[in-house]
Amino acid sequence: MKDSNLRPFFEPQGVALVGARRSPGFGYGIPVVMKHLGWGNRLRLVNPSGGTLHGLPLYKRVADIPGRVDLAVIIVPARAVPEVLTEVAARGIRHAIIESAGFAEVGEKGLKLQDRSRRVAQKHGIRVIGPNCVGVVNTANRFTTVEILDEALAPGPTSIIAQSGVFGTIMLDMLYQYRLHISKAVTLGNRMDVNECDALAFLKSDTNTRVIMMYLEGAADGVRLRDTLAEVTRDKPVLVLKSGRTEAGRSATASHTGSLSGENKIYDAVFAQTGTVRASTLEELVEMARVFSTQTRPPGNRLGIVTSSGSLGVMATDTAISSGLSLPSLSRHTVGRVREGAPGWMNVRNPLDVGPSGQYGEALAALLEDPGVDMVLAITVVPFVVFKEIGRQGLPGTSYFGDIASIQELAPRKPLVVCAVGNNDFVSQMREASGPEVPVFISPEPAVRALAALYRYWAWRGEV
Amino acid sequence: MKDSNLRPFFEPQGVALVGARRSPGFGYGIPVVMKHLGWGNRLRLVNPSGGTLHGLPLYKRVADIPGRVDLAVIIVPARAVPEVLTEVAARGIRHAIIESAGFAEVGEKGLKLQDRSRRVAQKHGIRVIGPNCVGVVNTANRFTTVEILDEALAPGPTSIIAQSGVFGTIMLDMLYQYRLHISKAVTLGNRMDVNECDALAFLKSDTNTRVIMMYLEGAADGVRLRDTLAEVTRDKPVLVLKSGRTEAGRSATASHTGSLSGENKIYDAVFAQTGTVRASTLEELVEMARVFSTQTRPPGNRLGIVTSSGSLGVMATDTAISSGLSLPSLSRHTVGRVREGAPGWMNVRNPLDVGPSGQYGEALAALLEDPGVDMVLAITVVPFVVFKEIGRQGLPGTSYFGDIASIQELAPRKPLVVCAVGNNDFVSQMREASGPEVPVFISPEPAVRALAALYRYWAWRGEV
Repeated sequence: MKDSNLRPFFEPQGVALVGARRSPGFGYGIPVVMKHLGWGNRLRLVNPSGGTLHGLPLYKRVADIPGRVDLAVIIVPARAVPEVLTEVAARGIRHAIIESAGFAEVGEKGLKLQDRSRRVAQKHGIRVIGPNCVGVVNTANRFTTVEILDEALAPGPTSIIAQSGVFGTIMLDMLYQYRLHISKAVTLGNRMDVNECDALAFLKSDTNTRVIMMYLEGAADGVRLRDTLAEVTRDKPVLVLKSGRTEAGRSATASHTGSLSGENKIYDAVFAQTGTVRASTLEELVEMARVFSTQTRPPGNRLGIVTSSGSLGVMATDTAISSGLSLPSLSRHTVGRVREGAPGWMNVRNPLDVGPSGQYGEALAALLEDPGVDMVLAITVVPFVVFKEIGRQGLPGTSYFGDIASIQELAPRKPLVVCAVGNNDFVSQMREASGPEVPVFISPEPAVRALAALYRYWAWRGEV
Repeated sequence: MKDSNLRPFFEPQGVALVGARRSPGFGYGIPVVMKHLGWGNRLRLVNPSGGTLHGLPLYKRVADIPGRVDLAVIIVPARAVPEVLTEVAARGIRHAIIESAGFAEVGEKGLKLQDRSRRVAQKHGIRVIGPNCVGVVNTANRFTTVEILDEALAPGPTSIIAQSGVFGTIMLDMLYQYRLHISKAVTLGNRMDVNECDALAFLKSDTNTRVIMMYLEGAADGVRLRDTLAEVTRDKPVLVLKSGRTEAGRSATASHTGSLSGENKIYDAVFAQTGTVRASTLEELVEMARVFSTQTRPPGNRLGIVTSSGSLGVMATDTAISSGLSLPSLSRHTVGRVREGAPGWMNVRNPLDVGPSGQYGEALAALLEDPGVDMVLAITVVPFVVFKEIGRQGLPGTSYFGDIASIQELAPRKPLVVCAVGNNDFVSQMREASGPEVPVFISPEPAVRALAALYRYWAWRGEV
């Protein structure tokens, strides 16, 4: 796996923004965001008109830029890109992000322009991300070429590779609201040079990245993708949403980012061989990333379920069995421990339906500490009026389920996921109560599927 | 299909609440809710202590109750139920909801008590819902034996049959937040008498019910269920979540509501034969109910997709093809119409990726009016900063996508579903903008799956 030499994209010393605009539109907001994030004195804006913008000087040509600059962010119209790349090279810059659209994705003419741009870049040894992308995000140094909210820059262990710029942007817009925080993000666009393999190799060596999530329409280089995945997944889980599963989907893809996405079965085989975790839907990608980024390697596939609703326990059990998890019997010790405080009607088994016994926290702790249980799903359900009544009596309504964030610490080496079903107010209070390390789902099946994927990944690594 | 004679459960003239409690706990809140909803002067509370509660007299015995009473809601401890049923019969009451738990679901002893109670009820011709349930809701007259929020009583076309009381309650707690409003709900519990077939037959004749959603762990009577479903689905869609798909799930079920849930394959066959729509997960049940309750019969299976993100268009296309929908080519007229205002780079096809062309509303209208398109998925995606910038300029950010609620009126006979992916603020504003008749999903696959289920149901009825 070759060193992909992408670091300057994420940690530039100085940035030339070529095509900064005075009026609203693409290229208008990026310098505002960069300046706001503290990059003002490392940012050089280029626009032939000269003058100033956002309090920064506008340089007429790339050649005019003073100081150390090792990254160019190019947002000029597509037809001007080859020339800009020549100027960038002349200025000694060896990394460029081309955000401009109008290349291979728009047809023959655009493809020619893209080829010309590639030749210029290759001739001068410029590494290029794009075109037709929004570039990168690095939360560690708060560097971004994507216009995003401050909240999206809260650092986390997950990095994102997205073929599409819009897709990458909306992921960044929403993921923090699921408490899924990011280390780095890169949108690849038409992949004139840097592709998903380069990005994977780079993120493999990135110490801030523990989990990689990737959206792919088609591989730039299938053989290299397989080899790269095989190496990366030995170190870090890679979660992939690969679209274009159907012929119609593939044909829709072809016109979008200018790639042909290849055969679905081959991808399935490649992902299976390389221990890559394939998500079948967008939701599943996000769900799995939430579990992989917070939960540890499970000791095995034995799932314990504690629930306050028998029905949801059954749904979770169905999904567990279909996904390759097992539901072990509880140890004699655990059964005795739970029975101690339990009312007579409570059936002490797995799934453990505690009903309205008030024993939820106890039961959860007992399951987590049972040596025959490798991971736990805690299904929290309570009629909303009961929840509110507890609140009126001066306790947090979530106290009904024990102090989940603390109970989790009893077994820090076992994955724990919460499923809270009901009114939104209840769910958001359960999110608070579960703390940042325990993901909360709003229905049981996705929670179980994500746990099963976590197990399968570690089993593939031979570490379970 | 026999007349199930359930109307007094939902439209009682007068209600005896047997087991009203003075202190917090089960039976404390129900009279408060009923009184709050205007049932105070039709409500008689029974408790041996006498005195008053919530400003209402407490009658010591059922026999003491004055006035017209045709429904008893029983919340006394399980062991007292047979005697209460005798008293209820003596008072001339012929409908009883037994909310008390402690019957078949707790084992042999409870089962005996349940059998004894059944014999008493049968002897006196009392129809019983329960035990181990929370009874019913009717939004039309605001009658409820379930403690729920006022918001959950907003009337709608969907009725719910739930085997489990807790499950029914949390559905009522949450569904209104998805704009899924209810006509009636019934929780069956241990089904000592009234079962899902009675409930289905009743809801078939209920003019306020257009869609039935049902949660089932096992059929009370398989043959009758098949026959009942076959009749009901000719009139109204029935959406079923049947858990206990796996052996482990079934065994978890057996201890929960005291039923054996039977074989999964048989259920699959019964549902397929009878045009019953089976949901595979809780989420899917809710998603399908949202589409079935708002969307009309589609003229065919041809899906038009308009999107501002190519990637999400591809995901939707994949799901459409896998679910049995087709993606037709657009008519020459539609292509011409869309091209008129479109920039050169825009590829006018299906899925129709309008990108940042500003042509979203136009394109959506053109697709809806294309005679070769039977239903439309509108995927709305925009970087959140752009959305906010539009808002700052004085227009609603949602204007980027045209006036969806009005555009929908162009083709009132074609289903239209919106998928809004991104920041929660964006999604909730899209919900507002789409109006009450256009469901908004937060990822493309569930939206498409629900449309496909809608098509399959109407195709099964032979009306497509």
